[in-house]
Amino acid sequence: MTKIGIDAISYYVPSIYVAISDLAECRQIEYAKLHKGLGLHRMAIPDADEDAASFAANALLKLIEENNLDPRTLGRIYLGTESSLDGAKPTSTYAVEAVEAALTTKYGERCLKNCDVLDMTFACIGAVDAMHNSLDWIKAGKGRKAIVIASDLAKYELGSTGEYTQGAGAVSLLLCENPSIVSISDTWGVASQSVGDFFKPRRKFDKLETFKNTAALLGTKLTSDEAQNLMEKDTSSFWSDGQADFEIFKEEPVFDGPYSNECYQDRISEALEHFKNQKPLNVLKDWHHLLFHLPYAYQGRRMIVANWVSWLKDNQSIQDLYDDIGQPASEQDSEWLRNVSKTTKYQEFITQKIERGERASSDIGNMYTASIFMALLSLLNSAYEDDSNISGNKIGFFSYGSGSKSKVFEGTIERNWKIKIKDSNLFEYLNKRKAISIEAYEQLHNGSQKSAIVKKDVVKLLSIENTSNLKGYRFYSL
Amino acid sequence: MTKIGIDAISYYVPSIYVAISDLAECRQIEYAKLHKGLGLHRMAIPDADEDAASFAANALLKLIEENNLDPRTLGRIYLGTESSLDGAKPTSTYAVEAVEAALTTKYGERCLKNCDVLDMTFACIGAVDAMHNSLDWIKAGKGRKAIVIASDLAKYELGSTGEYTQGAGAVSLLLCENPSIVSISDTWGVASQSVGDFFKPRRKFDKLETFKNTAALLGTKLTSDEAQNLMEKDTSSFWSDGQADFEIFKEEPVFDGPYSNECYQDRISEALEHFKNQKPLNVLKDWHHLLFHLPYAYQGRRMIVANWVSWLKDNQSIQDLYDDIGQPASEQDSEWLRNVSKTTKYQEFITQKIERGERASSDIGNMYTASIFMALLSLLNSAYEDDSNISGNKIGFFSYGSGSKSKVFEGTIERNWKIKIKDSNLFEYLNKRKAISIEAYEQLHNGSQKSAIVKKDVVKLLSIENTSNLKGYRFYSL
Repeated sequence: MTKIGIDAISYYVPSIYVAISDLAECRQIEYAKLHKGLGLHRMAIPDADEDAASFAANALLKLIEENNLDPRTLGRIYLGTESSLDGAKPTSTYAVEAVEAALTTKYGERCLKNCDVLDMTFACIGAVDAMHNSLDWIKAGKGRKAIVIASDLAKYELGSTGEYTQGAGAVSLLLCENPSIVSISDTWGVASQSVGDFFKPRRKFDKLETFKNTAALLGTKLTSDEAQNLMEKDTSSFWSDGQADFEIFKEEPVFDGPYSNECYQDRISEALEHFKNQKPLNVLKDWHHLLFHLPYAYQGRRMIVANWVSWLKDNQSIQDLYDDIGQPASEQDSEWLRNVSKTTKYQEFITQKIERGERASSDIGNMYTASIFMALLSLLNSAYEDDSNISGNKIGFFSYGSGSKSKVFEGTIERNWKIKIKDSNLFEYLNKRKAISIEAYEQLHNGSQKSAIVKKDVVKLLSIENTSNLKGYRFYSL
Repeated sequence: MTKIGIDAISYYVPSIYVAISDLAECRQIEYAKLHKGLGLHRMAIPDADEDAASFAANALLKLIEENNLDPRTLGRIYLGTESSLDGAKPTSTYAVEAVEAALTTKYGERCLKNCDVLDMTFACIGAVDAMHNSLDWIKAGKGRKAIVIASDLAKYELGSTGEYTQGAGAVSLLLCENPSIVSISDTWGVASQSVGDFFKPRRKFDKLETFKNTAALLGTKLTSDEAQNLMEKDTSSFWSDGQADFEIFKEEPVFDGPYSNECYQDRISEALEHFKNQKPLNVLKDWHHLLFHLPYAYQGRRMIVANWVSWLKDNQSIQDLYDDIGQPASEQDSEWLRNVSKTTKYQEFITQKIERGERASSDIGNMYTASIFMALLSLLNSAYEDDSNISGNKIGFFSYGSGSKSKVFEGTIERNWKIKIKDSNLFEYLNKRKAISIEAYEQLHNGSQKSAIVKKDVVKLLSIENTSNLKGYRFYSL
């Protein structure tokens, strides 16, 4: 049967970052807790002229140029994102518009005219869904080529417990038959449950109440009739659009961190079970590498301890661990699990199967949909630098999207992976970025920094239209 | 080769509607223009306890119950919508949550635990994309079953030119091998171009300016410093969240109607060309029925005139038309095309191939993603009522999503279609709905009507959470 999978990978990470040591100092958090505990080192910050569409455009353009792809041979460009910029128009179309324009000289007008463009949304797992669907599409024909982009920015409120797990950027994948880097097997473990561990609802405010409260702030007490009359006089349409409520969009999610970890762990275990129901699997023997969706660098290694214990049992090798730290008092003995995570044996497991996938996350932060694909790039770049022979190795992928769903799937590293990774230079690029101060970061965060901090030679947001028929349309260009 | 396609169809349309004659009278629009010109009769209105998730839940539950499906055999539930309720959590998960709860007695807890749930977004074409992808997924395995839901509400500003093209509801499709109703062929014509014909951007307002303007409305002139100080004192977080701007979500799109028609027409023609490049096609001979995405009932018949002329030419039967109304002065002779549309020959073409697909749209209005599938239901219900023999007939589907993309594809009506449609009772249901007054409609529209107008025995929005960790989470139940 023809192999199908990832033939090339590109990425775009913003050129500015905040040092986690600076943030820790400023927020009076012990740095070791963030660095040694969670694996955080630097977090990528979107500049004032960047967003999920510009990230996606750059990752797409880079993929096309680095691999000398003729855009007219691409059948689809699918984007997974939870940072979409519009309720109806896909963010992918903005990215494609900028890339098509950039390619006009070489390929003529509308070189992506017959390409199927689409957004998929399921929190951090949307790009895995885009890949899953695109692999089936490639399988259903002959010689098909698809691009999947994962693009996001993770923004949390200043001073909140999510603040140090921010990040941003995009990863793009070329999918086709007989791939050079990773072939993906047909077995997919899936588990879902509708929960509210992390979501981005609209914030509703009653307009009349808000107006009366505002008047009260200004020292004026209004009756509802008086407020209504004044609101109607507003010429800006802010108060006078006739709607009873405001629905305010915020990039910052509503979330419950510990609960979300629990959902992640439960869904992963259920999806793994679903995978095993379809195909026999001995994780420790069959999978050389485990790659995770990483909200923070050490999420995978911290979450997977109990599963690892069960995998030892699968292999009749739990006795060594019991000899070392004793047996747990109960199935849910969290102190015992903490001890497990400190054993040499578990640390060796991390070093062998997990750690290389974490390195980029430590330097970028949470990329939401892109983080599991960045973990793959991290593994490949690390192995390339170490000159490791990983051809033929199997990867277990553990993806998760809040809300919630997991997919567990399997890849095999193909023999030409080095040729496609040798110019990736991920860590070199990450080390060349510019650190910004906490003050500059806060101004970007709250939107008071309106112009870009760094002048850049990439696709960026130029302007947002203000005339009525196109109000809100976004313009991007190199 | 195994046939793949639509095995069952269900729908949910709100139980209240506005008579277009009432709206025309109230807005002083000539009724004939809307009724005879655009084919409008009634438009479905979401009640205060309804939204895209509740519509989807009802269409999904109905599909499962009417067809006695065991939910544990469903591999995926994909939703196409441009009325999503959250920026990260898919609207489909809310629908699945309500349906899983409703099925617990019969199938136990979490009967959709291993089901792949996802939202796809591309304006009105997102559900066609969901179907396209799901057909490939079915093809990639054996015995797979997928459900695709299209759910939306089309809301335009009161008194705007879009107001009379509103509508709401959902259609659900069961997809599998050897389908009873319609098999879908492998050929897909695709055309896309990033444009701003219709989109739902966030509306950005500078917070400081807005506060100063509000103070001015109240007769107080503030310096920026004074305004900043007062904003920080707001305890509601409306003014004091630290962000420089408001980003306000509105269901009502930014759009340019005539331009959007033009984009629709161009994309359709390009997608049809792309289809023909893959498979020889003589539209008039090969396709017995043409089904369109219908923003209003007569969109298809009004838009396709020039294409019809070219199809006559393909069949060497243009001379009759020239004999009848003369030849056009130029390729773009719009007056001549208007004359074409009035000919008996064109009217016969409409009656034969288009009109039965329009009937439901006249009575529901614009269902966005669901409208092309409602057109299919309209054709099938009409043919069932007429006792027409349409088995084996071929359907040409013309789908469109603003922003913009078209897909043109082909279906064949299968011989068991009647068995699956006989209890559909679409027109009977539509005739049983309750008309509401323009006043009641306006209060639902502006959000001042907070409680439901009709008490209903279906899934509905019960409440929106107000506590901090779950703020904005939506609860639905039968």
